[in-house]
Amino acid sequence: MLSDHKNYAYLHGEFVPLENAYLHVSDLSIQRGYGIFDFFKVQEEAPLFLEHYISRFFQSAQLMGLPVPLSEEQLKATLAELLQKNKLPNSGVKMILTGGYSANGYDPAAPNLLITQQALTLPTQEQVARGIKIITHEYVRELPLAKTINYSMGIRLLQEVKARQADDVLYHHGGVVTEFPRSNFFLLTQDNVLVTPAQEVLLGVTRRNVLELARQQYQVQERTVTLEDIAQAREAFMTSTTKRVLPIVEVDGKPVNDGKPGPVTLQLLEQLLELEQKQFID
Amino acid sequence: MLSDHKNYAYLHGEFVPLENAYLHVSDLSIQRGYGIFDFFKVQEEAPLFLEHYISRFFQSAQLMGLPVPLSEEQLKATLAELLQKNKLPNSGVKMILTGGYSANGYDPAAPNLLITQQALTLPTQEQVARGIKIITHEYVRELPLAKTINYSMGIRLLQEVKARQADDVLYHHGGVVTEFPRSNFFLLTQDNVLVTPAQEVLLGVTRRNVLELARQQYQVQERTVTLEDIAQAREAFMTSTTKRVLPIVEVDGKPVNDGKPGPVTLQLLEQLLELEQKQFID
Repeated sequence: MLSDHKNYAYLHGEFVPLENAYLHVSDLSIQRGYGIFDFFKVQEEAPLFLEHYISRFFQSAQLMGLPVPLSEEQLKATLAELLQKNKLPNSGVKMILTGGYSANGYDPAAPNLLITQQALTLPTQEQVARGIKIITHEYVRELPLAKTINYSMGIRLLQEVKARQADDVLYHHGGVVTEFPRSNFFLLTQDNVLVTPAQEVLLGVTRRNVLELARQQYQVQERTVTLEDIAQAREAFMTSTTKRVLPIVEVDGKPVNDGKPGPVTLQLLEQLLELEQKQFID
Repeated sequence: MLSDHKNYAYLHGEFVPLENAYLHVSDLSIQRGYGIFDFFKVQEEAPLFLEHYISRFFQSAQLMGLPVPLSEEQLKATLAELLQKNKLPNSGVKMILTGGYSANGYDPAAPNLLITQQALTLPTQEQVARGIKIITHEYVRELPLAKTINYSMGIRLLQEVKARQADDVLYHHGGVVTEFPRSNFFLLTQDNVLVTPAQEVLLGVTRRNVLELARQQYQVQERTVTLEDIAQAREAFMTSTTKRVLPIVEVDGKPVNDGKPGPVTLQLLEQLLELEQKQFID
């Protein structure tokens, strides 16, 4: 990248250098943590599975009572223009919609739409081969179907995750597993049924893609998953836009099966990578 | 106020005109709703019950793992300087501490401390005489003892509050009452016992002051309060820094007792006003 090539953000209807993208402190995200967002991947300058992310962005906005100041078509045109300006081949694009500049610090005003694009770190082959260790924590997100900006619990738990030498934390509710702060959870039963929690989870786009891939080869169930199911599982993994399919080898200090990434997990990752590649070619 | 008299805010270690107080979009309040705050009243240019608010601010910060960049003494000196600059006799001061400018939009960085002071609207005599109508909603805040900036639920419920012609919404958990988004809840039983929820509530400074005043005259209990208790109550009211003691005359469409502000409620309000006045004189 040339030194004079600026990275741009979209804010208040115009493109500004990211370093100059500021919100006034009366914004309801700062005052009250009130906002929604979505995040998609760009590979070779092309957005992946864009339709799904856009439609979820609008759904989250609706669930939180936030009108999106652009139509879907206008938003897509704006995204295309931003990508064209930034020319970041492999990156992530984040769209944030906040409650706007509130006069009294509580009542929503005209929402602020912010779009940023930044370089993205994806899991390395070594990380995939090693798998990740997770801990569990009792918690349910307030509005699981809405992708709100509220990650207080996830960030607050970072210290515990680190202290327990883990990589992430899986939420459960009385032993019923839901999701990670930023990823979905899957397991493979001893009978080779692929299972993912159905309730109180964000419907991840990668979750959706993996379910679609898996249905062609395995029995698949979206249902209640318990911590006890994990203790009995043959394989486990997380899915997200940035993590893709990442094997889980340890939960609360206990190995998942033999403590190694499972073959079905690794196969689904391969197939997801092919699917991403296909999107790019099409 | 003279037209050239600016209202100042404190941000990044300096005083800036409020209109110029901006945070970069990488701030974790914008990215992840991650921050805490506190809010106190200023009467005749003097802060009321400042010690309690400061100590709660530090407690919230600790609960969320956010180091406050100033010591208590430094913070007090900064507040005094801000009040001196702004000369807003009757106002509210808000201190917000966010997770800072995060490089990856998730991991906390050096926290940003923001302090603003703005004119304050307090309940009028007419509002007190009329009392307020409330609805109830099943919800528990994530970390009730921490005053985090997460008000997603409260703001999202504004539309329902309005649609049901109410003034506020009281949270409960399986019929066990906790608090309002920004206020505490009290009721007086038929036996003249003053009761307020003990668990899963923010420990309001006004709640504390009212409890202290009430203990001199009534039997007082901090305990479990249920929706059924409200149905049987003789009086009910909310407390907060800005609402002081505000009578509740209707809950979910049903009158509290005779549907009028109760004498004990109004007496406690009088005593709180006296206590505030005394602070100012001392």
